[in-house]
Amino acid sequence: MDVKYVKYKDRSLPIEERIEDLLSRMTLKEKVGQLNQKMYGWEAYQKTEDGIELTEAFKEEVAFGDGMGALYGLFRSDPWSAVTYENGIPTDENAKWANKVQQYIIENTRLGIPVLLSEECPHGHQALDGTLIPTNIGAGSTWNPELMEEAYSYVAAEVRSRGAHLGLISTLDILREPRWGRAEECYSEDPYLAAKMTSAAVKGLQGERTELAQQNKIIAVLKHFSGQGEGQGGHNAGPANIGERELREIHLPGMKAGVEAGALGCMAAYNEIDGIPCHANAKLLTDILRDEWGYEGIVMADGVAVDRLTQLAGDYESAAAMALSAGVDLSLWDTSFTTLEKAVERGLVPEAIIDRAVRRVLHLKFSLGLFEQPYTEENRSTQIVGSESFRQTNLQVARESAVLLKNQDNLLPLSKQTKRIAVIGPNADQIYNQLGDYTAIQRDGKGRTILQGIKEIAEGEVVYAKGCSVRGNSTEGFAEAINAAKKSDVVILALGGSSMRNFDLEFDSNGAAIVSGNPTDMDCGEGVDLADLKLGGVQELLVKEIAATGKPIVTVLIQGRPHAITNIVDDCSAILCGWYPGQEGGQALAEIIFGDVNPSGKLSVSLPRSSMQLPVYYNQKDQGRELQYIDSPASPLYSFGYGLSYTQFEVSNIQISPSTIPLDQINAGAVIDVQVDVKNIGSVAGAEVAQLYIKDMEASITRRVKELKGFRKIWLEPNEQKTVTLQLRKDDLAIWNHEMKFVVEPGHIKIMVGNDSINLKETILTIE
Amino acid sequence: MDVKYVKYKDRSLPIEERIEDLLSRMTLKEKVGQLNQKMYGWEAYQKTEDGIELTEAFKEEVAFGDGMGALYGLFRSDPWSAVTYENGIPTDENAKWANKVQQYIIENTRLGIPVLLSEECPHGHQALDGTLIPTNIGAGSTWNPELMEEAYSYVAAEVRSRGAHLGLISTLDILREPRWGRAEECYSEDPYLAAKMTSAAVKGLQGERTELAQQNKIIAVLKHFSGQGEGQGGHNAGPANIGERELREIHLPGMKAGVEAGALGCMAAYNEIDGIPCHANAKLLTDILRDEWGYEGIVMADGVAVDRLTQLAGDYESAAAMALSAGVDLSLWDTSFTTLEKAVERGLVPEAIIDRAVRRVLHLKFSLGLFEQPYTEENRSTQIVGSESFRQTNLQVARESAVLLKNQDNLLPLSKQTKRIAVIGPNADQIYNQLGDYTAIQRDGKGRTILQGIKEIAEGEVVYAKGCSVRGNSTEGFAEAINAAKKSDVVILALGGSSMRNFDLEFDSNGAAIVSGNPTDMDCGEGVDLADLKLGGVQELLVKEIAATGKPIVTVLIQGRPHAITNIVDDCSAILCGWYPGQEGGQALAEIIFGDVNPSGKLSVSLPRSSMQLPVYYNQKDQGRELQYIDSPASPLYSFGYGLSYTQFEVSNIQISPSTIPLDQINAGAVIDVQVDVKNIGSVAGAEVAQLYIKDMEASITRRVKELKGFRKIWLEPNEQKTVTLQLRKDDLAIWNHEMKFVVEPGHIKIMVGNDSINLKETILTIE
Repeated sequence: MDVKYVKYKDRSLPIEERIEDLLSRMTLKEKVGQLNQKMYGWEAYQKTEDGIELTEAFKEEVAFGDGMGALYGLFRSDPWSAVTYENGIPTDENAKWANKVQQYIIENTRLGIPVLLSEECPHGHQALDGTLIPTNIGAGSTWNPELMEEAYSYVAAEVRSRGAHLGLISTLDILREPRWGRAEECYSEDPYLAAKMTSAAVKGLQGERTELAQQNKIIAVLKHFSGQGEGQGGHNAGPANIGERELREIHLPGMKAGVEAGALGCMAAYNEIDGIPCHANAKLLTDILRDEWGYEGIVMADGVAVDRLTQLAGDYESAAAMALSAGVDLSLWDTSFTTLEKAVERGLVPEAIIDRAVRRVLHLKFSLGLFEQPYTEENRSTQIVGSESFRQTNLQVARESAVLLKNQDNLLPLSKQTKRIAVIGPNADQIYNQLGDYTAIQRDGKGRTILQGIKEIAEGEVVYAKGCSVRGNSTEGFAEAINAAKKSDVVILALGGSSMRNFDLEFDSNGAAIVSGNPTDMDCGEGVDLADLKLGGVQELLVKEIAATGKPIVTVLIQGRPHAITNIVDDCSAILCGWYPGQEGGQALAEIIFGDVNPSGKLSVSLPRSSMQLPVYYNQKDQGRELQYIDSPASPLYSFGYGLSYTQFEVSNIQISPSTIPLDQINAGAVIDVQVDVKNIGSVAGAEVAQLYIKDMEASITRRVKELKGFRKIWLEPNEQKTVTLQLRKDDLAIWNHEMKFVVEPGHIKIMVGNDSINLKETILTIE
Repeated sequence: MDVKYVKYKDRSLPIEERIEDLLSRMTLKEKVGQLNQKMYGWEAYQKTEDGIELTEAFKEEVAFGDGMGALYGLFRSDPWSAVTYENGIPTDENAKWANKVQQYIIENTRLGIPVLLSEECPHGHQALDGTLIPTNIGAGSTWNPELMEEAYSYVAAEVRSRGAHLGLISTLDILREPRWGRAEECYSEDPYLAAKMTSAAVKGLQGERTELAQQNKIIAVLKHFSGQGEGQGGHNAGPANIGERELREIHLPGMKAGVEAGALGCMAAYNEIDGIPCHANAKLLTDILRDEWGYEGIVMADGVAVDRLTQLAGDYESAAAMALSAGVDLSLWDTSFTTLEKAVERGLVPEAIIDRAVRRVLHLKFSLGLFEQPYTEENRSTQIVGSESFRQTNLQVARESAVLLKNQDNLLPLSKQTKRIAVIGPNADQIYNQLGDYTAIQRDGKGRTILQGIKEIAEGEVVYAKGCSVRGNSTEGFAEAINAAKKSDVVILALGGSSMRNFDLEFDSNGAAIVSGNPTDMDCGEGVDLADLKLGGVQELLVKEIAATGKPIVTVLIQGRPHAITNIVDDCSAILCGWYPGQEGGQALAEIIFGDVNPSGKLSVSLPRSSMQLPVYYNQKDQGRELQYIDSPASPLYSFGYGLSYTQFEVSNIQISPSTIPLDQINAGAVIDVQVDVKNIGSVAGAEVAQLYIKDMEASITRRVKELKGFRKIWLEPNEQKTVTLQLRKDDLAIWNHEMKFVVEPGHIKIMVGNDSINLKETILTIE
């Protein structure tokens, strides 16, 4: 044991001093080790007849850098990692094995620098027994950041209780292209709503900086920085040919909010922006992220993304130098960063730039308290993973994420005494189809499907028929489904999409499915991009056949992307969009169907009529006229912010104070209060979202028809009225002017408030 | 008469001196007059019982500015102007009335500054009896700039012989969005091919600077600067959210080539680029256009475009000041520029900026020699307008623009002795459907339809049935068509689209059709944007019905945009894409069908499989993998550069010299010769296009999978072989680097040559 005074181990010193001391002791090889997150964590151990042991491969990786910056996915379970209940580390032994990994590294390296363990948390921790919440497109539809913050705090507790420290989560991708298979990972098409959710994710996962050294928070690694939701043609990681102003208006606010919330991790995006790959984009990763926003965390590479830079750089060393110089600090499985020693030797990158990145990685390790306490208490996870309190929160998220799109003649809610209900469709009884991409292997019986949820509440007979698959062409199941429909009083059709991977898939080196040639029923997920947004396979045909029976149809959409349901809207009396509602989705949606819960979700994205009218997001640039095609409206089928309730709300009496304000007061931090009365004029209690939009009437650059700048979700009993106050500040009113300065300009700003993005009350704010 | 020496009237002085002298004499009112092109020219005169007279409206406009900068469309004939053979100025009196306009202005203004007369020339002069050539998308498909230069020189002669001076022509719009109704006005999706055509247009229309004062050239006003082909969603004038690098790579090369060819006119585009409307874009209109490229001409506003800036500027004076300051010199029908006196008084724009624009307008007038000879010889136009020599050139353009897409079992060419030919389809016998948007009213019997062309060549019986309209839903004509097909040996189906306007249309203030609610058979043209690129109406159904007869089908596509013909490809044995082939299209296409002409057109745009896979242009950014959707290929149905012949060509023996070259030699102007052998290995003579593409293998920014950088069309007899030499220079090899400098970088560049964009022979150029 080392009993000398070692400065970097002195917890009484400021982290910066400890980092400098440690750095001064490190060899280049050790530094490079800290910048690498090279192996797949599930390859670090193996089950043997005697139990579990660390692999030689793991030990070689440790030896490579005499330590390692981070180890990804020790607990990741999914078809790609192929970690199952049979071959994976049992959940209650996770902390023990995280400690073994940590201990091996500490004891078998010269300096004993602890490792960061990073885990996938796109919608909960994707490990055996992890609690799986709705995917982001549903989370965004709750319009309830407080609720999501709570959910994320549970996610963090689960991850940390198992011994891991970093949670990877897509919060930054803005859904501008619904053909993209990662649509489900986007909170919204809107930067403001998404930024609020990003902020909630950071607060929930990471908490205050001082909480990090405790045992229930993890560092949020926000994905992907930046512009990935703009990928051309909806192709995964496709180029974003956008200009800087579009980038700043739409794609950067999320990360800025993340930085303001204290985020210490983000991941560079695969895509290029106007010719510069994000991993080589110094303006993005350094000038804007650090110099402009003051970010102090790490920039992690996306999987093998740095190696893709060899297309530009020519070889691995040059690619590594390019990425590191631009601002990438920590690798993910790439070969390039393993060559950094040679890159320094070749003069491609100065050691000072290596040091810069090492400091950032070490900063995280010190912040997490790993030098003081590298190990995790081994028996906490059993109380935390899959806790009942998390289940309740998860259920509430599922309830609030569901958006009621149509409810003709108040068909919903159904009476629980309905004599016979037919539940039909590919998404009625397949738990994986509710869970989204990246999903861990599920324990048999875990979670509830739509069918199960309905059966638990319905008091009459429930008949089930699958009818068809999500994308298959077989109509073999139609006869049974039609038969079931004919015998029922009402039909619940569970349609939509699926991100359920299967073990036959081939995977790219970054984990994205290579779908071509693989039999699958997926229509969503990473690498699963779609040209035609219609419901897949024979689903539309199934609707037509069921509609022909004359039975009223309630369609429940389980989906990770907006499908174009134009062709079936008229056939359905009610349509409820549940997105991927997670493990509790079956219960949540059944509660809504039978009226135990009043739906309150609002669309976080516009639903297109078809792929042919893309893009359809609500915040289009104002062209002074209504857009149209000669063969189709340009407007979406259902717009952003829309969602029905079982009650009705009246929005009235919009007031702003002050209505005229000098520019210098705005710049000095003045707040504009926008008040509006919201009243429940129906007969049941429910939640409504007051939405505030603005339009600068005389900006020096073009503006959008409207832009969300505030919202609040409130609960109202029948006949209850509340006055909601939303606030506007400089950052809400500013634009990126000709000189790319973020400024408020004098003039008139239209202020619009309502409960969707279409029907709005207006007033004018004057800035003098 | 003024007999004093007046400096500006002294033709012996340099133009600049004359301008300064004249400017010094002008009042602000007179200056503002020179910046206005306010009224519609067809309202400047009226026919009375006694003949033709200038209107009071015209005289008022002259009085407004004590002169006027320009008068637009004195001869424009189309449904919007509603100028017909009945109410328009007879062609042989055009020059006389141009002179009367000129004379009125000279004699009724203090300084007697002549007016510029500007005319629409999108595909020939759009006036009564003007010769109408194929639209640009067809012109681009000729890959023959020399031929197009010849055609444009005839257009210029027609316009000038009638007394006008400026020809407005879309040459700058790059077709990135085929949903856009102005697709027909784009030469190509590719900037290099389009730039060569722009250069041809300038040379043909304008010639050398010294030719301008003669009587057969006009100033080319190149439209639209810039980025209009990128309009989001294919919406006309939609926002281009692109970054500066994409703008420079794709949209600017055309105008740069135009400037290099000496263009003295361009028109700002309606669209914004990343938040800045082109009309308010000083970086575009001044920094790049003038400071970077040295442009000396005028920037004309698009119709009422400056008024649209009131959305940003708040009022007309401010909008005018904004546009003028950015670099717009001459208005088009807007109110804003008429308020420039007040704008100066309000201090919104200094008079020096007014002077800057006035100098540019006057420069054109001096260059055209209008101060010396403002009038046009009155009897020249009768020999020039509609000349036989132009007809022959026009015919050749139509022949070369047709692209043979499919020719199964060499169905084409048909034998002239074929006993019975059925000619079916909405585009078989409707001359307007061949002519494109902006088309002037046609004299009865002018031009040849497909049916007429076929009838003139076929020696057997030709039966015609329309079958259906372009977009109508009626199948009433099917029975007759099927009947005709059944009785025939072969069916020629003339399908596609139409930009034929009718007089019932409403028009926007800029002349774009307002189609909503108007019965029309158009599916293309300004304001006629399409969501679904499938053939309109029941055309696909007609193909299916005809195919069911078992008769071989030759489909001739008459269209202004790429339609998605995926659903009918297999039903047709041969497919010939004729675009809008102009007045001689009927003859040209019939000559190809019967083998008098061997087709040689190559696609100037990729043909998509459907709207759902957009964008599909060939020069996609290289993503290191083949793009795909899970439900559709990402590749086009037919790619850029593709086109069959009645013979076959072999491309071989690619050689480059030098194959390795120091960077400084490239920068000093060295030329790389790329040689390839092209051999006609078939049995008939024909033309082939050798196409040269490059891919920089190690650029510091991302590159496209390939980029066209050279081409040459050559004629080869059977068994003849020619060695084609294409040259690469610095500008072909340079990229816009991180710092947005246009530089050649050392490394390897893949050089690819072939006769389409897919099947290419490769070699490597090394730059040291």
